[in-house]
Amino acid sequence: MLKIALDAMGGDNGPAPIMEGLFLALRRNKNFVVIAVGNEELLLPLIPQKFKDRIEILHCMDVISMSDSATDALKRKESSAYIAIELVREGKAQAFVSAGHSGASMSLATLRIGRIKGVSRPAIATLMPTVDKNTLVLDVGANVDCDAKNLKEFAIMGNVYAQDVLGIEKPLIGLLSNGEEESKGNEVTKEAFKLLENMPNFIGNVEGNDIFNGSVDVVVCDGFIGNIMLKTAEGVADTIGKIIKQNLRRSLVSILGAVLMRKVFKGLKLKVDYAEYGGAPLLGVKAPVIIAHGKSNAKAMQNAIFQAVASAQSDLNINIESNLNKYKDL
Amino acid sequence: MLKIALDAMGGDNGPAPIMEGLFLALRRNKNFVVIAVGNEELLLPLIPQKFKDRIEILHCMDVISMSDSATDALKRKESSAYIAIELVREGKAQAFVSAGHSGASMSLATLRIGRIKGVSRPAIATLMPTVDKNTLVLDVGANVDCDAKNLKEFAIMGNVYAQDVLGIEKPLIGLLSNGEEESKGNEVTKEAFKLLENMPNFIGNVEGNDIFNGSVDVVVCDGFIGNIMLKTAEGVADTIGKIIKQNLRRSLVSILGAVLMRKVFKGLKLKVDYAEYGGAPLLGVKAPVIIAHGKSNAKAMQNAIFQAVASAQSDLNINIESNLNKYKDL
Repeated sequence: MLKIALDAMGGDNGPAPIMEGLFLALRRNKNFVVIAVGNEELLLPLIPQKFKDRIEILHCMDVISMSDSATDALKRKESSAYIAIELVREGKAQAFVSAGHSGASMSLATLRIGRIKGVSRPAIATLMPTVDKNTLVLDVGANVDCDAKNLKEFAIMGNVYAQDVLGIEKPLIGLLSNGEEESKGNEVTKEAFKLLENMPNFIGNVEGNDIFNGSVDVVVCDGFIGNIMLKTAEGVADTIGKIIKQNLRRSLVSILGAVLMRKVFKGLKLKVDYAEYGGAPLLGVKAPVIIAHGKSNAKAMQNAIFQAVASAQSDLNINIESNLNKYKDL
Repeated sequence: MLKIALDAMGGDNGPAPIMEGLFLALRRNKNFVVIAVGNEELLLPLIPQKFKDRIEILHCMDVISMSDSATDALKRKESSAYIAIELVREGKAQAFVSAGHSGASMSLATLRIGRIKGVSRPAIATLMPTVDKNTLVLDVGANVDCDAKNLKEFAIMGNVYAQDVLGIEKPLIGLLSNGEEESKGNEVTKEAFKLLENMPNFIGNVEGNDIFNGSVDVVVCDGFIGNIMLKTAEGVADTIGKIIKQNLRRSLVSILGAVLMRKVFKGLKLKVDYAEYGGAPLLGVKAPVIIAHGKSNAKAMQNAIFQAVASAQSDLNINIESNLNKYKDL
């Protein structure tokens, strides 16, 4: 049966939300078991009797905390992240999930599990909400300086993930740029455009707003720009929420209005709440690696675990390798 | 008296909203006159008697349209943009405003009016809304590939604009990056960080969300990232608006709620409506150049004209030159 290696200690709020998310996931999907890596004393009392046969605890005392340096991760061989990664490397588990130090997870996954043949650099992908569907954006932080070849690989990996895990038959792939015309772009994206233009599904340059209007399924950029885009989107959503709240306080009538509209706001929260989507997959390593937000609540962790399960049950990595090979001379 | 050269023909909706914006501006500020460049037959009938002594029409028949190439702008010597720019170059007007082809305005301004001594490349600055105030971001489109020295000049120009035109005594300057720590950044921003770290008011790296949370006054980035940031912000605001509307249709109760909340939504629109801020100044050319959005309504044009007036009445360009010189060895 499919086995997930879970870093049960990482995350800003300790093991409780991680384990609660795990229980939610176990309840809704009977087709996997888990090795939870962490402090047995803390974890064992949390586990309900009915899940005991589906959760194995692998005891360890060390946790890489958010303030630690990612470069130390390789030396911290008794940490929950390191041990969970080793389980995957040794084939004792088929996928890795962590809400801990994301830089540490990335380094450990890349260096210990290793890259898929043909991948120069793994990339972090994330789903951004639109009115009707989501848009996959990669890279959103793993690689700050990218060349055109890196961007081409991201496009291929994003394409396969959209097909195999998100279930989009023919995903539309766009290159994030400062205008739609082929002549737009910086030096790197102009070169990447040439590498991508013969790839089926490539629709050309897309702009920042296209991420949110449903016109494209996979958006490719370097990790520096991906991070700025992500934080900008969060900042705008936050600010709009604050402006609504601030204006609300000004009148009783509008407070009444807000009460009547609470369903609308709930719907809004659902769609702009990035936690809904669980974690971000690190694409390009030899096994599924899902990096959840440090602040993940139980629902986000559940969804991160589901992503790991869906990825491990798919042919994602086989198809990434074969597509990289297929398009290598584009 | 201060004279503004207005390209009265550029803009997606012809001269009407441009001229209406001009009348609004003339009514509220008595301290300037205008040379409106464009087709006399179209413009003259629009002008109310009471403004006739403050508006001089300079007749021309050609307009650079949005679909034209910016590189042709220099050859179109009978176009409204070209003639208006020449008025500034010859000292017959002190500032230029256009809602026309922004690439053409930039080329004409840079090549005909010329750069301030010490400026390698002019930059477009724009105001982004936060809950309480606005944040000036530059460059948002003039320069796609920038080096560290370009970013340093943008920081100095943004600093002076914030002081002299926006009236912020000691603006906080940030460098847009993928994290706040000094170690974050791509190759170019890391080098720019070193050039900026001894500049007074420089607060270090800032992230995408900081643009919207009021923690910084001037944010520096290259024009490729600035464009993506701007379009992302617009895309998120649009999407949230659409999700609210979509959810509203689902129930009569929430429609009633929305009616009661209309003041809130009006306040929201005011703050996220970029047209409110008028145009974007092109900083680094020898005279104030304000580039308004092609879709500008009368109010946006009024504000663009006010920006031109405020810039021309300030010591903006003198101070840009002296600050570039003062900080040249940082």
